[in-house]
Amino acid sequence: MNQGKLKITPDSTLIGWIGTGVMGLHMCGHLIRAGYNVTVFNRTREKALTLLNMGAKWADSPQNVARSSDVIFTIVGFPQDVRQVYFDNNGVLAGLPAGGICVDMTTTSPSLAQEISIKALETNAFALDAPVSGGDIGAREGKLSIMIGGEENIFHALMPLFRLMASNIVYQGPAGAGQHTKMCNQIVIAGTMIGVCESLVYAAGAGLDPLRVLESITRGAAGCWTLDNLAPRILRNDFDPGFMVDHFIKDMGIALDESRQMGIKLPGLSLVDQIYKEASARGHGRNGTQALYQALLEGHHQ
Amino acid sequence: MNQGKLKITPDSTLIGWIGTGVMGLHMCGHLIRAGYNVTVFNRTREKALTLLNMGAKWADSPQNVARSSDVIFTIVGFPQDVRQVYFDNNGVLAGLPAGGICVDMTTTSPSLAQEISIKALETNAFALDAPVSGGDIGAREGKLSIMIGGEENIFHALMPLFRLMASNIVYQGPAGAGQHTKMCNQIVIAGTMIGVCESLVYAAGAGLDPLRVLESITRGAAGCWTLDNLAPRILRNDFDPGFMVDHFIKDMGIALDESRQMGIKLPGLSLVDQIYKEASARGHGRNGTQALYQALLEGHHQ
Repeated sequence: MNQGKLKITPDSTLIGWIGTGVMGLHMCGHLIRAGYNVTVFNRTREKALTLLNMGAKWADSPQNVARSSDVIFTIVGFPQDVRQVYFDNNGVLAGLPAGGICVDMTTTSPSLAQEISIKALETNAFALDAPVSGGDIGAREGKLSIMIGGEENIFHALMPLFRLMASNIVYQGPAGAGQHTKMCNQIVIAGTMIGVCESLVYAAGAGLDPLRVLESITRGAAGCWTLDNLAPRILRNDFDPGFMVDHFIKDMGIALDESRQMGIKLPGLSLVDQIYKEASARGHGRNGTQALYQALLEGHHQ
Repeated sequence: MNQGKLKITPDSTLIGWIGTGVMGLHMCGHLIRAGYNVTVFNRTREKALTLLNMGAKWADSPQNVARSSDVIFTIVGFPQDVRQVYFDNNGVLAGLPAGGICVDMTTTSPSLAQEISIKALETNAFALDAPVSGGDIGAREGKLSIMIGGEENIFHALMPLFRLMASNIVYQGPAGAGQHTKMCNQIVIAGTMIGVCESLVYAAGAGLDPLRVLESITRGAAGCWTLDNLAPRILRNDFDPGFMVDHFIKDMGIALDESRQMGIKLPGLSLVDQIYKEASARGHGRNGTQALYQALLEGHHQ
């Protein structure tokens, strides 16, 4: 490992950034504001304009971002996008210099994270998987939670960068462990979501005043982020994302695939995944995850 | 209604208390300490000794408690116990004076609450359903949540008594509405429980350090009471109740019965109910609800 590269400062470290959606835009913005020189690439160039106006340089491929950077961050959409960004002929791995570090912050499969890590090591480079939670608000405020897998000393080296984006940064273990941890997060959310949505369906069926019900139950043993944040949106008929149904289905699919490989059963997650898939098929795919409430009312499942 | 009875003070109001389990013992204790004269009954007299030593009087039947009280509280085990306490020949309803008020704080069926309310009205007496959440700690500290159904002016009249037991007291609507609200609470818990337990099963399967996983996920969108309070117990292999599996199965059964009568489907609750029933059949009935984790590992379900 090129220890010389591991001292991270705005003067000595060149940053690459691939993926300038809502999350990436905010996260990369924090690095630029901290004084880092950043080279960006995005499939749709217009979505990178905010960063280019802040002083970022443009590169015309992931490979060229990697060539001109010491540390490359990626945060794109689906596992197939990650695969393309890393493994294509003009991908990150084709440009990553020896000693370079790439950090995938997309929520993707632990197996893919391991694959990238192995491939990076072949060129004496390094890869971390570092998915986040906290949504667009967490990204904007630099208060994300980052769950990190990969070489522990690489993780420590990158702390100055992670700290610019997040308030909760935890090293979880070897390559893939960050993604596995994100799956743990999503599995809990699948449960809180079905619980909260079914509870509101019941409240409506029983003719209760749902706002009074929330007054009774939000601070006790039923208390959860979903009840605090999404139940009020459901009651206002606000089904905008937040976090999109189709992205959640992607995450649940990864967790279920991995669980099958581990030989464990997740009956609750399987059920929630199924209900969401039916909801997506009926046109809820680009709604927020709270649309599970509507899906339950539509009641085609089971 | 005998408005004269509705001014509730330790000097003018005689209290009856039926059910001196862990919850009832603490709750009734608060009333005695506030200066109220209390007459108690419990199926097993020994369990009432603490209250008798504090100055409570003993009555040998629910009927005799009702005869000598203006306001009668009941908190027993299962719906069939409530039915017995109220409808037996020597039950509460056989002794309730005109203008008397009975308050069932057991978690029981909304239909049964309505039945008691109608029966009480026949003798110009009143009934509230007022189930609680907050567990033994909430009961001991007088910080329960009480969800109340029945006549709203009766609810207001009893506030001085509820305030001695609870910090969150919400009127929910007509007879049965308190019980329906408690069902809403339990439905959310069924979801958070399956989410948290499956997440920990996944974490173990993936070889993660579960304490680090909790560090990453407890403060974000997966955050919930179950994760904060029961996940650490699971990781310490502590499956003591807390809240007993068999009691939770009782509650879920009520919610599912009611939902069928409403013509709504609760697929998540149905699944969790099924897994818990299998867990109970395998000997987990008197464990805490966090034993769902063990049930998932045993994996006989599905």
